[in-house]
Amino acid sequence: MSLLSDWGARDPSAAICKAVVMGIAPDALIVDITHEVDKYKVRHGALMLWCALPFMPVGAHMAVVDPGVGTARRPVAIETARGDFLVGPDNGLLLPAAERLGGVVRAHLIENAQYRLPVVSSTFHGRDLFAPAAAHLALGLPLESIGPELPTESLANVGWTPVVAAPGTLDTTVIYRDTFGNLKLSALTGDLLGALDGIAHGDDVVLTVNDAGRQRQLAMKWAPTFGEVALGDHLLYEDSYGRLCIAQNQGNAALSLQLGEGDLVTIARPADLAGNLDQAAG
Amino acid sequence: MSLLSDWGARDPSAAICKAVVMGIAPDALIVDITHEVDKYKVRHGALMLWCALPFMPVGAHMAVVDPGVGTARRPVAIETARGDFLVGPDNGLLLPAAERLGGVVRAHLIENAQYRLPVVSSTFHGRDLFAPAAAHLALGLPLESIGPELPTESLANVGWTPVVAAPGTLDTTVIYRDTFGNLKLSALTGDLLGALDGIAHGDDVVLTVNDAGRQRQLAMKWAPTFGEVALGDHLLYEDSYGRLCIAQNQGNAALSLQLGEGDLVTIARPADLAGNLDQAAG
Amino acid sequence: MSLLSDWGARDPSAAICKAVVMGIAPDALIVDITHEVDKYKVRHGALMLWCALPFMPVGAHMAVVDPGVGTARRPVAIETARGDFLVGPDNGLLLPAAERLGGVVRAHLIENAQYRLPVVSSTFHGRDLFAPAAAHLALGLPLESIGPELPTESLANVGWTPVVAAPGTLDTTVIYRDTFGNLKLSALTGDLLGALDGIAHGDDVVLTVNDAGRQRQLAMKWAPTFGEVALGDHLLYEDSYGRLCIAQNQGNAALSLQLGEGDLVTIARPADLAGNLDQAAG
Repeated sequence: MSLLSDWGARDPSAAICKAVVMGIAPDALIVDITHEVDKYKVRHGALMLWCALPFMPVGAHMAVVDPGVGTARRPVAIETARGDFLVGPDNGLLLPAAERLGGVVRAHLIENAQYRLPVVSSTFHGRDLFAPAAAHLALGLPLESIGPELPTESLANVGWTPVVAAPGTLDTTVIYRDTFGNLKLSALTGDLLGALDGIAHGDDVVLTVNDAGRQRQLAMKWAPTFGEVALGDHLLYEDSYGRLCIAQNQGNAALSLQLGEGDLVTIARPADLAGNLDQAAG
Repeated sequence: MSLLSDWGARDPSAAICKAVVMGIAPDALIVDITHEVDKYKVRHGALMLWCALPFMPVGAHMAVVDPGVGTARRPVAIETARGDFLVGPDNGLLLPAAERLGGVVRAHLIENAQYRLPVVSSTFHGRDLFAPAAAHLALGLPLESIGPELPTESLANVGWTPVVAAPGTLDTTVIYRDTFGNLKLSALTGDLLGALDGIAHGDDVVLTVNDAGRQRQLAMKWAPTFGEVALGDHLLYEDSYGRLCIAQNQGNAALSLQLGEGDLVTIARPADLAGNLDQAAG
Repeated sequence: MSLLSDWGARDPSAAICKAVVMGIAPDALIVDITHEVDKYKVRHGALMLWCALPFMPVGAHMAVVDPGVGTARRPVAIETARGDFLVGPDNGLLLPAAERLGGVVRAHLIENAQYRLPVVSSTFHGRDLFAPAAAHLALGLPLESIGPELPTESLANVGWTPVVAAPGTLDTTVIYRDTFGNLKLSALTGDLLGALDGIAHGDDVVLTVNDAGRQRQLAMKWAPTFGEVALGDHLLYEDSYGRLCIAQNQGNAALSLQLGEGDLVTIARPADLAGNLDQAAG
């Protein structure tokens, strides 16, 4: 059983949800994935779930980043092909992780009153709806008991930034900055290998960043690990989840490169880039 | 079993207390309510305990926000009508939560050496006194074994800001700002319904704030939920614990309204307020 | 079983390691000591382990502050005289705690593939190497099964700042600033009692700080607890781990004294200091 939210560690909200789960399912092993998702940032929460859930034991997972709490957005419980139950708001938060766990098998609306707290507030569905639902599913409650089935194609999508691969170039986007200042991109390693044919560890790459119309180019190596570049040098590497990242060896790439979430980055090899520049000039 | 403190997540203090509990009561289910109470702010800690404990399983709860550690303030264990044991310094921290759990049944001084760590430091009573006491009480130790009984009326009070309700106006105070920038007031929903006769969700209210002698007025709706007001609009709502709060739909009310802890707020309806202003002028 | 790292609470890394442990050793009691060690600060992590582990149940302890991840630094598991297994990078992080638990009995390289995750990334050895190793050791795996033995004298040392005690003066260094602004010194209480013969609680001391060549002197008391000095006054005290600390009663000593990690401090009594100054002048 895991919990993820944007409630922060200062407020007692996450602890209260955990206590609600313990009251229903005292034997559940509970892991707090994080409660420090940036407030209301559904995409950040979706990325963290995508990273974390493959390493969690199969079970019930409650995730709440919910700017629409109290509105008509639906509370849902999703069954994945791996056998997990993902519980939270239907705002896209759960879908990337569900895809990574084999895809959505079925989805149900959380509606039945006997699997909620007696009073449901309009602002704390984590405590009143999602935690009880996740705890009952962890105990073995059949998914269909939680409420009516929903068409899986009706589930809201998170709207990831599209990756565009072409021979010699890969267009991608910074989607996350971690606490080390490493910058995660929307593209996975497979996208890079497909676009830059034959690229191997140790090769040079050039990242072209669009800064409000002005282009700047960042040279670095495609490296297997931080230690393969000099102290303070930048690198493009595969993070431990198979995702492309920009980092600085023992530094903070976000600060040193002045890059942040939403920045568009085109990755190419110097040779291909020269060709592109020639074409652009021609 | 729950833990609350102002030690922060960076220092190992909270983990050490948890380990001390585990060493004594290895089967205890332990929840960290929060360790991010603002340093030395007994009232913040008291509010969080008040919020959280009703949702925790009945049991032992240790809370430490303790500016007087090492002085004569007493270490106490309190039994509540619900059957909990609240363990911590006698500085007001525990009393509001005890009232919310049915009231104080009896209180004992934590004194007996066999339920402490072998050496009691002067600065870390959480580890040396409170965690062992809470763990032993969780295991079933009778409260009277922990030390001599104290008169319950001798327990220190937290000194909440008083709420003043009059026909047409409610005087209250901002007592807490949460991580979303929502502002919790000292008044509960019942206070509002008593003072503003017949007020219903959707009604307009005016909050008069005293800023160093200069009054400013903030217009908003008394609304059931964030989604009932436009994006960026402010609202007065009941939080999920029955307490009045000021918020901004998908914004940070503390920043946008320049309000913070200790600010005095008078709530009225526009019509009543006009009457009051007339009276004031007359 | 305990976990310590510099990954922070915002990223899901610590939760993923905990989930990996749970998958292998579901009955392990797991305590997060902290994941807020300053990034890459091996010495801070070493100090926290030194503080915390004596209070943890005997068992497996995983600690990861690992600026050298992906380089040749060795992954090690150390057995202590108390019977613990300390698991992490061989960069000095583990040794001070191992000494405090009775010393290193033997050390093994973490190498055998069956006690790792199937794929070992170059950047997240916590998840792929250390968490599985710690979990298997917690389950009772013999240490020698994890990989070949290493000479204990080959283990990397953390390089603590040396303490110099002479009759009448104690040279020490600020090694840590906690979240209250208290400043921990490299010297323990025994060092002070040895250097300042006959010093007793309540005595005055003078701390001479070298600020880029300019000396300044800070007068305070050697006090058993904060409450023994006036509100706002500074004190030298023994922290709850037997270490010398500088603090301000209900204040932040780091801010008020402008002291931080690495600052050199000489502690003396006013009388001895006068003597030294005379000698210096003479």
